[in-house]
Amino acid sequence: MSNDTTRIKWIDPVGHNDFSGDIEDLLNNVKRTDTQIEVEALDRGPHHVEYHYYESLVLPDVLHCVKEAENEGFDATVIGCFYDLGLEEAREVSDSMPVMGPAQATTHIASTMGDTFSVIVGRRKWVPQMRSTISRYGLADRLSSFRPVDLGVLDFQADPEQTRERLTSAARSAIEEDHAEVIILGCTAEYGFHETLQEELGVPVLDAVVAPFKFAELQADLAELGWTHSKVGGYESPRVSEIHKWGIPSDFSTRDVWNESPRE
Amino acid sequence: MSNDTTRIKWIDPVGHNDFSGDIEDLLNNVKRTDTQIEVEALDRGPHHVEYHYYESLVLPDVLHCVKEAENEGFDATVIGCFYDLGLEEAREVSDSMPVMGPAQATTHIASTMGDTFSVIVGRRKWVPQMRSTISRYGLADRLSSFRPVDLGVLDFQADPEQTRERLTSAARSAIEEDHAEVIILGCTAEYGFHETLQEELGVPVLDAVVAPFKFAELQADLAELGWTHSKVGGYESPRVSEIHKWGIPSDFSTRDVWNESPRE
Amino acid sequence: MSNDTTRIKWIDPVGHNDFSGDIEDLLNNVKRTDTQIEVEALDRGPHHVEYHYYESLVLPDVLHCVKEAENEGFDATVIGCFYDLGLEEAREVSDSMPVMGPAQATTHIASTMGDTFSVIVGRRKWVPQMRSTISRYGLADRLSSFRPVDLGVLDFQADPEQTRERLTSAARSAIEEDHAEVIILGCTAEYGFHETLQEELGVPVLDAVVAPFKFAELQADLAELGWTHSKVGGYESPRVSEIHKWGIPSDFSTRDVWNESPRE
Amino acid sequence: MSNDTTRIKWIDPVGHNDFSGDIEDLLNNVKRTDTQIEVEALDRGPHHVEYHYYESLVLPDVLHCVKEAENEGFDATVIGCFYDLGLEEAREVSDSMPVMGPAQATTHIASTMGDTFSVIVGRRKWVPQMRSTISRYGLADRLSSFRPVDLGVLDFQADPEQTRERLTSAARSAIEEDHAEVIILGCTAEYGFHETLQEELGVPVLDAVVAPFKFAELQADLAELGWTHSKVGGYESPRVSEIHKWGIPSDFSTRDVWNESPRE
Amino acid sequence: MSNDTTRIKWIDPVGHNDFSGDIEDLLNNVKRTDTQIEVEALDRGPHHVEYHYYESLVLPDVLHCVKEAENEGFDATVIGCFYDLGLEEAREVSDSMPVMGPAQATTHIASTMGDTFSVIVGRRKWVPQMRSTISRYGLADRLSSFRPVDLGVLDFQADPEQTRERLTSAARSAIEEDHAEVIILGCTAEYGFHETLQEELGVPVLDAVVAPFKFAELQADLAELGWTHSKVGGYESPRVSEIHKWGIPSDFSTRDVWNESPRE
Amino acid sequence: MSNDTTRIKWIDPVGHNDFSGDIEDLLNNVKRTDTQIEVEALDRGPHHVEYHYYESLVLPDVLHCVKEAENEGFDATVIGCFYDLGLEEAREVSDSMPVMGPAQATTHIASTMGDTFSVIVGRRKWVPQMRSTISRYGLADRLSSFRPVDLGVLDFQADPEQTRERLTSAARSAIEEDHAEVIILGCTAEYGFHETLQEELGVPVLDAVVAPFKFAELQADLAELGWTHSKVGGYESPRVSEIHKWGIPSDFSTRDVWNESPRE
Repeated sequence: MSNDTTRIKWIDPVGHNDFSGDIEDLLNNVKRTDTQIEVEALDRGPHHVEYHYYESLVLPDVLHCVKEAENEGFDATVIGCFYDLGLEEAREVSDSMPVMGPAQATTHIASTMGDTFSVIVGRRKWVPQMRSTISRYGLADRLSSFRPVDLGVLDFQADPEQTRERLTSAARSAIEEDHAEVIILGCTAEYGFHETLQEELGVPVLDAVVAPFKFAELQADLAELGWTHSKVGGYESPRVSEIHKWGIPSDFSTRDVWNESPRE
Repeated sequence: MSNDTTRIKWIDPVGHNDFSGDIEDLLNNVKRTDTQIEVEALDRGPHHVEYHYYESLVLPDVLHCVKEAENEGFDATVIGCFYDLGLEEAREVSDSMPVMGPAQATTHIASTMGDTFSVIVGRRKWVPQMRSTISRYGLADRLSSFRPVDLGVLDFQADPEQTRERLTSAARSAIEEDHAEVIILGCTAEYGFHETLQEELGVPVLDAVVAPFKFAELQADLAELGWTHSKVGGYESPRVSEIHKWGIPSDFSTRDVWNESPRE
Repeated sequence: MSNDTTRIKWIDPVGHNDFSGDIEDLLNNVKRTDTQIEVEALDRGPHHVEYHYYESLVLPDVLHCVKEAENEGFDATVIGCFYDLGLEEAREVSDSMPVMGPAQATTHIASTMGDTFSVIVGRRKWVPQMRSTISRYGLADRLSSFRPVDLGVLDFQADPEQTRERLTSAARSAIEEDHAEVIILGCTAEYGFHETLQEELGVPVLDAVVAPFKFAELQADLAELGWTHSKVGGYESPRVSEIHKWGIPSDFSTRDVWNESPRE
Repeated sequence: MSNDTTRIKWIDPVGHNDFSGDIEDLLNNVKRTDTQIEVEALDRGPHHVEYHYYESLVLPDVLHCVKEAENEGFDATVIGCFYDLGLEEAREVSDSMPVMGPAQATTHIASTMGDTFSVIVGRRKWVPQMRSTISRYGLADRLSSFRPVDLGVLDFQADPEQTRERLTSAARSAIEEDHAEVIILGCTAEYGFHETLQEELGVPVLDAVVAPFKFAELQADLAELGWTHSKVGGYESPRVSEIHKWGIPSDFSTRDVWNESPRE
Repeated sequence: MSNDTTRIKWIDPVGHNDFSGDIEDLLNNVKRTDTQIEVEALDRGPHHVEYHYYESLVLPDVLHCVKEAENEGFDATVIGCFYDLGLEEAREVSDSMPVMGPAQATTHIASTMGDTFSVIVGRRKWVPQMRSTISRYGLADRLSSFRPVDLGVLDFQADPEQTRERLTSAARSAIEEDHAEVIILGCTAEYGFHETLQEELGVPVLDAVVAPFKFAELQADLAELGWTHSKVGGYESPRVSEIHKWGIPSDFSTRDVWNESPRE
Repeated sequence: MSNDTTRIKWIDPVGHNDFSGDIEDLLNNVKRTDTQIEVEALDRGPHHVEYHYYESLVLPDVLHCVKEAENEGFDATVIGCFYDLGLEEAREVSDSMPVMGPAQATTHIASTMGDTFSVIVGRRKWVPQMRSTISRYGLADRLSSFRPVDLGVLDFQADPEQTRERLTSAARSAIEEDHAEVIILGCTAEYGFHETLQEELGVPVLDAVVAPFKFAELQADLAELGWTHSKVGGYESPRVSEIHKWGIPSDFSTRDVWNESPRE
């Protein structure tokens, strides 16, 4: 393995950077020595993406952000939303730079740590999409339950003590009633709580910021071996010539990402 | 049931209207007497949406188009892409106007017509997303196979004779080797072939334009009984006040759809 | 589409016609202008079909009734029992006239309306067969729960106020505890309640009489395009010559349905 | 265990007894010393039950035959059709006498003998119902394939040499191409071939007559311990008083089975 | 079928024989007249196998015990632990003598007796492995629940009255809340309770000692027809020459089982 | 994250160290700068573990080896067999040191790289256990196929050119016929081939030695955050006092691992 620095970009897929500093600090605490982190929020868009509509609005900007990261030589990118918003799409857009999302990282790690896991979410509204995603990952049988705590994305950091209590109570019910062996915090805005929770509950509690970032460090290593998403099949990339022919760069805000890398 | 006209919008989610006339003619041939049809393509965007990236680009425009249809009093809308692009999202954005997509309509109809069905697609690239969608609909066990014919979306109408031959050959293999009892043409651009195919093959061959349109007529009827997508759970709509607070209408091309219907 | 009248037969698979008038009125309220309805009960047999034994007794009569409907030129037939009693068998017996059942219609419609649905049934006894049927339709993952209300088929209309209370209470539990997004009334005798329920509960409540009938109207339209159940595979019909050779018309009560349509 | 004789009835659910003698001989060769066998065919009905329609016609007679067997003190009954025709219904009708069918017996035994099995069937027409049954038994993942040999039920014994060749060839393909570890002969009329096949193929080849009979012997033993089908839930029996109230015994050919055993 | 005695070995896979006498008595009460039983415990090892580690320790001894039974001419062997410890491995080691385990026998029998079953276990710790085993058997959809009673293996016979109360209470909850139609006692040490339970509860209650033994009697019969585990695929046996070449008999305690039966 | 060295043990679960040097070299090429590697084979046992019997023989030694690694302060351990032999058991025995296996690592990584993967195995005999393991991991739907190359474990390195040809040919068939997007080499003895294969085939080819090792590096990092296997539920450890009480250390070859860490 090369000793070069590993550069990882964290994309916060919302139109504000209120959480960006916290996330950067958090990641700097857990990164490997030779990893460099850049956290980036969008310059427009909704302040949370609880709704499919909001996801749809930010999705093109997120994808251009991912492609820009690849153009700039980042080694891996994380899209910071537990819906794993844009994860499949990003792997199509990225030629070879790995991309990760919180749901895929936490559930795949959890399934190496216990028979079952529960996901502590903010609102019931989130469950259908997350359930569908986890099913697609093949882990529906390992999922003990979703436990909503009736908090929106923007509420989690508003009153940390209340948040901690609700998360602890929901997680305890998941362990005792639903027989979860591992707890996943199902929103990147639920950061800052996993340590106290796991102390109190006695089971691993996976944080949705730290886990995908650490998985992305692994992906960056693996990519040096040529192990990144396959370009045969579902992640086949569109042709840049076609993108230009249809005037995409002029009709959409593409951050000029298609000027470089004339893949054909 | 009221005797009023049923108005159905067909959205062609691409940045050209080359197929719009054909589709309108086709639908006019199969509509109920009291149905009115409007076919609309987008004014920007890729000319096909075979790639996730292209889907992502058109998705916001499609959703605003759906919301506009609801604002204008349409009784149902079809999003004309076999990926069922934006279907879940549109049901969230629409308060009560039903929305349909070709994959959901054809597979749900097919499952009332036979034990198994095969989907004749253009390219292997399409399979993973479609497979995932059909699995999410619960019909993976009914799916005999995908059969790609190595044609892109824009090729299907270019040389109809060649297309017919390839579709026939692939469908015949699906029936004989994969034991499909029903054939689904897995792209809206595969229109115009189902009649000759089903004559030749002796099994029903579902067209991806006609089937979702006819299902949408049913949905329009059902909506009069209050039977449209649930607003409790996954399709809960975002609040218009929030959309305005974050400046969505000014930062994105929203067709002014959020000015009306101040849902709170 | 032709402007001809669509004729739909509703078969009430029991040996009494106490509900037939109500059902006919109900259907006449929701039918399309050009649809004609005929409701028919059997002239012998049990008064409800909660038991497999009762289903078995009525099954041959139901199938002959279906075949008779096809011989008489009906455009579609509904077999009015939520067990979807005889649905597969009827599609084998019918050459090309579509057939529908309440469970298939309601669950397929529900799955276009929400992530999950619950079925409010009369008695626990019914659950295994219905669960098996819904699994066969591929929708086990969408099924939140069955909720029995401890009423037999013949009890539902006996004390409507009590029925309404039980259905409402069970449906509310399904929504709040089992996270159902759509409610299905799992018996044709639960008619007359869906409107008040959905007003009170705020989610769509599908009626087991109206839903399959409306789906049958769609099927009748589709059949004009040649889209009816496949005759290759599971629904292949028996040969009439064989039926005669074995003396079926003389040994069984076949309503003379095999005299016409000498299919070979 | 008591040393009394175990009496087992084999019901051949067709309107002729051409195979009854062969089956009786076959069973007498493999029975335990203290087992007595009675083989009974129906006195009316189709000569094979490849079609759902034929199954429906014989079903009431089969159920009355089962109930009669219970009334007469038989210890277990086998319904001799690989569709497992009437198996669920018979367990409802029988108070406590166990009932078995060829598909359930062979697949449950096969799943103790290898990772996967293939079923050699007569015609493609049979596959959907059998596939559905095996899925309901939970064994879809163990099923390598169905292999049709293009023979109807009445053809298997017509030219034994040809039958043997076709079965051998299909089974060999199942083992080599589909990786089956066990072979199931998927029709009771495929009797008489399993020994030569398993000699030639080197894997166990389960016969659809012998296997359910031997399983029924076990069930008869278990029933002495009170281990027979549960009467709580799906197999709850109908009330005899209701059967009489509705005139079932006079309107249907019930063999007087409801005169005895006044279960309430 | 031959009239020879059927010899069945029961292996108690623990390093003490405290339960062996009880088990032998129990089996002698339910055996067929011509069956002979031998119960054998191990001469070293843990006193229960609740932990994977303990299972691993006893596994080689169990396998050699199975092979010894085959060498000595036993007709079938049961490995007496509800984890079905060593069952797959034993079928590989045994050339043709059938082997059974309590989980496979009880769940396969239960699935012929009702739609669903619940397993009453000692401790939550046991659930993941058992759940995985039952899933592998294909019966996850039939499993209503596991109900732990907070008793270890060695506690069940310590205070029979307390055990009976806990089992009854857990089983009653399984029937009423989880809708189980059949109860399985999920540990061989839960012997001696099924009769009172099933009297009190009104549903069949399967005992984990009796059920696999009776199934083994069936297997012994079937083996005379050549119907035992397949040697093509997963149960292919290792070559004895290789075992000797690597010095297995001298480096491990193999009970000299590889001296006989020089299979090549 | 601490800057301390990460120490990872690779256990080669066979009674010879012929491959140990190669594996050590391979791992040293891909390790992070601060990782130290120790490769250890067993001092007795079969030379490959293709058979369950062989797995059973080495299992106790492997578990004691894992526990010893934890006692000696290793940060993670890999058990080097694609059967994931002992993986569940090792997580029970290990208090908090993470353990990984090749099948879990490769399939979990592959599922982040493409829609589907195929596993290139040595012999058909291996498939059932591996299929069962991958199903348990939830990834059966992602598995395109197993492709055996008819080579035993000890053959892979015997004639590298022949091995390369067979692997390439099988992988190409998997990509073209089974639509695999990612290839997994399903045996640790298939090392040394992935680079040429992936160059030739144009899709990622995961090596069963490198992948679990790299995953173990991630696990070692995560363990510093308290994220290792849960001790609530299936991985609950046995009590050391009980182990001593039953004389395990004297009756089995336990490497004195239970003298330290008196966990209670």
